[in-house]
Amino acid sequence: MTLKVGVLGYRFMGKAHANALARLPMFFPDAPDVERHTLIGRDEEALSEAADRLGFAHTSTDWEEVIDEVDAFYNLGPNFVHAEPSIAALEAGVPVLCEKPLAANLSDAERMAEAARSADVPTATAFNYRFIPAIQYAKGLIEDGVLGEIHQFRGRYLQDWLVDPDAPWSWRNDEELAGSGALGDLGAHTIDLARFLVGDVERVSGHLQTFVDERPVEGESTGDGETAADETRPVTVDDAYSAQAELEGDVMATFEASRFANGHKNDHTIEIHGSEGSLKFSLERLNELEVLRGENRGYETVLVTDESDPYVEHWWPPGHVIGWEHTFVHENYEFLSAVESGTEYHPNFADGVAVQKVLDAIERSDESGEWLQVE
Amino acid sequence: MTLKVGVLGYRFMGKAHANALARLPMFFPDAPDVERHTLIGRDEEALSEAADRLGFAHTSTDWEEVIDEVDAFYNLGPNFVHAEPSIAALEAGVPVLCEKPLAANLSDAERMAEAARSADVPTATAFNYRFIPAIQYAKGLIEDGVLGEIHQFRGRYLQDWLVDPDAPWSWRNDEELAGSGALGDLGAHTIDLARFLVGDVERVSGHLQTFVDERPVEGESTGDGETAADETRPVTVDDAYSAQAELEGDVMATFEASRFANGHKNDHTIEIHGSEGSLKFSLERLNELEVLRGENRGYETVLVTDESDPYVEHWWPPGHVIGWEHTFVHENYEFLSAVESGTEYHPNFADGVAVQKVLDAIERSDESGEWLQVE
Amino acid sequence: MTLKVGVLGYRFMGKAHANALARLPMFFPDAPDVERHTLIGRDEEALSEAADRLGFAHTSTDWEEVIDEVDAFYNLGPNFVHAEPSIAALEAGVPVLCEKPLAANLSDAERMAEAARSADVPTATAFNYRFIPAIQYAKGLIEDGVLGEIHQFRGRYLQDWLVDPDAPWSWRNDEELAGSGALGDLGAHTIDLARFLVGDVERVSGHLQTFVDERPVEGESTGDGETAADETRPVTVDDAYSAQAELEGDVMATFEASRFANGHKNDHTIEIHGSEGSLKFSLERLNELEVLRGENRGYETVLVTDESDPYVEHWWPPGHVIGWEHTFVHENYEFLSAVESGTEYHPNFADGVAVQKVLDAIERSDESGEWLQVE
Amino acid sequence: MTLKVGVLGYRFMGKAHANALARLPMFFPDAPDVERHTLIGRDEEALSEAADRLGFAHTSTDWEEVIDEVDAFYNLGPNFVHAEPSIAALEAGVPVLCEKPLAANLSDAERMAEAARSADVPTATAFNYRFIPAIQYAKGLIEDGVLGEIHQFRGRYLQDWLVDPDAPWSWRNDEELAGSGALGDLGAHTIDLARFLVGDVERVSGHLQTFVDERPVEGESTGDGETAADETRPVTVDDAYSAQAELEGDVMATFEASRFANGHKNDHTIEIHGSEGSLKFSLERLNELEVLRGENRGYETVLVTDESDPYVEHWWPPGHVIGWEHTFVHENYEFLSAVESGTEYHPNFADGVAVQKVLDAIERSDESGEWLQVE
Repeated sequence: MTLKVGVLGYRFMGKAHANALARLPMFFPDAPDVERHTLIGRDEEALSEAADRLGFAHTSTDWEEVIDEVDAFYNLGPNFVHAEPSIAALEAGVPVLCEKPLAANLSDAERMAEAARSADVPTATAFNYRFIPAIQYAKGLIEDGVLGEIHQFRGRYLQDWLVDPDAPWSWRNDEELAGSGALGDLGAHTIDLARFLVGDVERVSGHLQTFVDERPVEGESTGDGETAADETRPVTVDDAYSAQAELEGDVMATFEASRFANGHKNDHTIEIHGSEGSLKFSLERLNELEVLRGENRGYETVLVTDESDPYVEHWWPPGHVIGWEHTFVHENYEFLSAVESGTEYHPNFADGVAVQKVLDAIERSDESGEWLQVE
Repeated sequence: MTLKVGVLGYRFMGKAHANALARLPMFFPDAPDVERHTLIGRDEEALSEAADRLGFAHTSTDWEEVIDEVDAFYNLGPNFVHAEPSIAALEAGVPVLCEKPLAANLSDAERMAEAARSADVPTATAFNYRFIPAIQYAKGLIEDGVLGEIHQFRGRYLQDWLVDPDAPWSWRNDEELAGSGALGDLGAHTIDLARFLVGDVERVSGHLQTFVDERPVEGESTGDGETAADETRPVTVDDAYSAQAELEGDVMATFEASRFANGHKNDHTIEIHGSEGSLKFSLERLNELEVLRGENRGYETVLVTDESDPYVEHWWPPGHVIGWEHTFVHENYEFLSAVESGTEYHPNFADGVAVQKVLDAIERSDESGEWLQVE
Repeated sequence: MTLKVGVLGYRFMGKAHANALARLPMFFPDAPDVERHTLIGRDEEALSEAADRLGFAHTSTDWEEVIDEVDAFYNLGPNFVHAEPSIAALEAGVPVLCEKPLAANLSDAERMAEAARSADVPTATAFNYRFIPAIQYAKGLIEDGVLGEIHQFRGRYLQDWLVDPDAPWSWRNDEELAGSGALGDLGAHTIDLARFLVGDVERVSGHLQTFVDERPVEGESTGDGETAADETRPVTVDDAYSAQAELEGDVMATFEASRFANGHKNDHTIEIHGSEGSLKFSLERLNELEVLRGENRGYETVLVTDESDPYVEHWWPPGHVIGWEHTFVHENYEFLSAVESGTEYHPNFADGVAVQKVLDAIERSDESGEWLQVE
Repeated sequence: MTLKVGVLGYRFMGKAHANALARLPMFFPDAPDVERHTLIGRDEEALSEAADRLGFAHTSTDWEEVIDEVDAFYNLGPNFVHAEPSIAALEAGVPVLCEKPLAANLSDAERMAEAARSADVPTATAFNYRFIPAIQYAKGLIEDGVLGEIHQFRGRYLQDWLVDPDAPWSWRNDEELAGSGALGDLGAHTIDLARFLVGDVERVSGHLQTFVDERPVEGESTGDGETAADETRPVTVDDAYSAQAELEGDVMATFEASRFANGHKNDHTIEIHGSEGSLKFSLERLNELEVLRGENRGYETVLVTDESDPYVEHWWPPGHVIGWEHTFVHENYEFLSAVESGTEYHPNFADGVAVQKVLDAIERSDESGEWLQVE
């Protein structure tokens, strides 16, 4: 059986997932057969070019039509279009992979999670960083008790692409379209890894800040008309956020993200301290994990590229490093295997809504100036 | 003229300052002449041994007597004995250097600052990390605009000496004697550097946590009697804290410290992001500063050991690194020069009380669960 | 026009190049169309499985037959089978890409280079590390004079897969089959980068060492019969080599490689010092280049993932790192573009033989104990 | 008993040793009592100022007179004045500490070693880097077998202070006065650590290079007359050297040093690979040692500042780093303890001459173009 996949979105994430699908046969021969069936978008010309390049057999400007024709639906559109197509697909019994954050707001995310529960098919919230070999290796160390009892979690995600006040406005700067800024786009990844590696977030205190209040409009519009050369639009989301949190088991946590961190391009750092050991990870050096084991004195820089490391035997010999895109291959492998076999997959929409509740609580906490329970 | 210095405290900090005083003549020939006049403590035998080793001419178990005989009074005792001797010295017109945090609580600190204002002699709160060449170099870069407008400050101070639940109880674990735990002991340094490098703290949200609630009593008691082998005492201060803050000029900040960070011995990290550049510093590599300059693409690892770097010409040629103790030499040089000349010194008691207000607000915020204005 | 490619070799390098060919359409749409036409090997069963997985239309156990059917011939076999098939292909006018080192010995390499000159079609010696974005960026810096006049070059390539004396014997341990050990396998890359970045090697002094003289035979035999459980074979190549060299322009150089460097998996390090600046590169962090620019004080860690960096716009946004395998995509893109257009390609067989002359001189120098001129 | 120390040389090394002597009582209370008795030099004014600052009771321009008055003689002068005063002191039965390299040439060094043998008093060649806690810790690891059988040693010492062709000529650029350049000044340290950590050097192949042939004369002359503003003098020593070597036990080694390594101030790096583990050390981060232990997968960054680490209990708590100058305190402590007790001290003059033989062989090998046996 070949799984037909329909994909909404043909830019950054569309390319990342199309590449992942294309690479499965050579590197994961036991993955289901997959057909890149239909690519979905609004601009027919760009869509056609993309489908050709990304290897899709068909294109469509109407996602509703596509749902009935595919075995899995990938929703890679902007946050504000996550809910309706995903819910429709689930109501049609089609498994859905949706990019993160699950939705632009908590009520949409909850509707999506409810649809997933009713549909009883595999769903995925695309927290691809769970599938980094070093993160899976970290998970194993924690489960094996190498860190002992976890005391502290620290996660931050630093980028710098908005530090220039003349960087153009996009949907990512708009609260209605994106939900939030650095918080939802970057923080969602951090919070997912906190849940994956340590445990649920129980209460939070949040802090959001917008350093540049309006930005020039340029090129990429949201489709609602002309843009004059000197037009600007308001930035209604956070440029950076921080949060303090308590995770289950009395774990103290801090989260942070910024799009204003000069010198950091895609620097997602996770640090965990336990009673017996510690861990450090950075996405810009994603083949490495720094591990303090109880019997050692300092952090050990482990190059997580041994044959025995998660997913590595599919790729190259030790020391032949993989890249960011490989996380999507692993993610697609796991999700499509679950689709084929009908087994459970994580992180699913329930995981996505769990993260969304934290995002929502952080934002409300920033407004109220108080710690808030999550849920 | 030779300045006679009286020093209360002969353990860790006593040794650090005695060493600093001893090294001035060879490396800072323009420093005032100093006599290590009297060392003050309670245990006569230990005191006598220490005075001999640390080069003090006299010893005393009564600080009140010493105040009249010296030109500068160093209060290096535990936090709960900072207030009375310092205030008495100031009332006698004697300049005072007091270890950090300024006091065990805000009201003591305010009384000390008030005494300093009245006395109109130089005072010092011993935030020695201001005097690291790399920190002074950082200060220069910020003042020269290399970082542009500051957007974010991040400071954390990680140690691991309490992660073992059997590590013995000491005065540092007692709220009445120490004021707070990691917050006051380590966080005070971080907050001082935030003020020094960026600006005043305007509002905070704090989070304190105690991971181990009681500890065995052993050896070092507070002097109030015998200790049975299996006695424990309650830990009434934080083992770790985190805080979110706004600094003047809309700067977003996070602070954190821990005594439970396995694998970190004395890791005080400062990171600053501005519109044009960024900085990173770590105390365990205190000769280095990582600088992102606007015209560069990545952080530059500057070894701050050139002849033109702050204080360096007094020491060794480029690349011949200095250590932690050198910060005390620079601090003593600056303070005693101010004492001799009668000029202003920073960080003084006013700086110390400014930090104490932040410590106090963080602690109250943790209790109330709300953001608090500082002051 | 579609270029039909025939590939001899289906293990490690076969997979690396097949993957590269497969990825061209999605990421390098202007690359020639390529058909993975025939995969060549000896073991029909393994070959068939590999061809299926790697996407080849046909298989063959006879390379001579394949030569006439393809537009480009890839020789990815062990060193001792580089010469004959490559020469035959060239004599048939078929462009050839051959893995490094060009041959198991200098005379074979020279015959291959002669055949390339006569054929006048593009050839490639597969020094893929030239095509790392950070190395191309380094090349640009040197050409732009950022380093000034080059004084010193240092290259070393450290692996650890033979440090266990029970690691099994393979053709890589046999002088006749492999030519040399760490020298040819790893050193060839280093010497090619020295030539690419700095200039020709003029004279050398070499040092080869074999730490383990015989190894157990296991599984992978060279096909000449049975192997008993406790059989061993002699190691007749170097486990590690070092060399001192002079490059053109009075550049002082050192080269080194080891298969016994515990803790190093695939650590190819290049360091260059010039009158105005310096460079450092490590293959295990191949997205990074450390650059000392004249106007700076320390090395700047450049993440070479900006859109303007070599090849990067084909892949992902800044900070989304690529892996080892991407070097093959770039290499194949450049070589096949040259094949299609008939333009010159480097590193070609002339470059390969230039490196081989250095390998040969290092080996002879080790035997004679004297410095030797190259050529 | 108080040891009277006479010191020839009052610049860089004079300051380093005077400081070391001054710090002994406070930090090494069991060290012998020491009097900084006489400081020796030629320029009376500069000498007087230095003696005052460095705490010497007397000055002298005639080392012969001083020898009879002191219990230990420190020869910290330029290389060409190492031999005569040291030999005279030894002939008078006075223990001698001499800066490295032991002499400007092998025959002087041998005369010095012969004098030491005859005198039968403790001697020291001032290879201070043996006394870095991290190096002592490394020594312990090797002795305990943590690295297994040693296969490879790599040492390099990079500085950049001559990369500017207008950097002024000094005695360090003159073969007669200095013996050699980077080789003797920096390489002597590397070779001593190879001997200390691994074993004797058996044969070598050397390579010396001078990048700038003459330099402007400025200020510091050798005392033989006037210098015109635009005068230059020839550079008759190496600006950089490299060497290949075999150490006892079939250990493969490479040594290298440069005064032209832009971006490196005082970067002495040692790397050792054994059958079970590896080590890495860098002088610019001298509190750290990177250790690969057999049971681990990657290098562990050990901060060698624990109480149990060599010499550390004398200084500060864990994580409170020491500096370059502390190596001199440890060295003086060990040497003067040996002087007081009459016990053996290493590295002594025999060690110094062993290093000098390697320096000499490297230089002769560079001239002859051949590998040479040492001795």
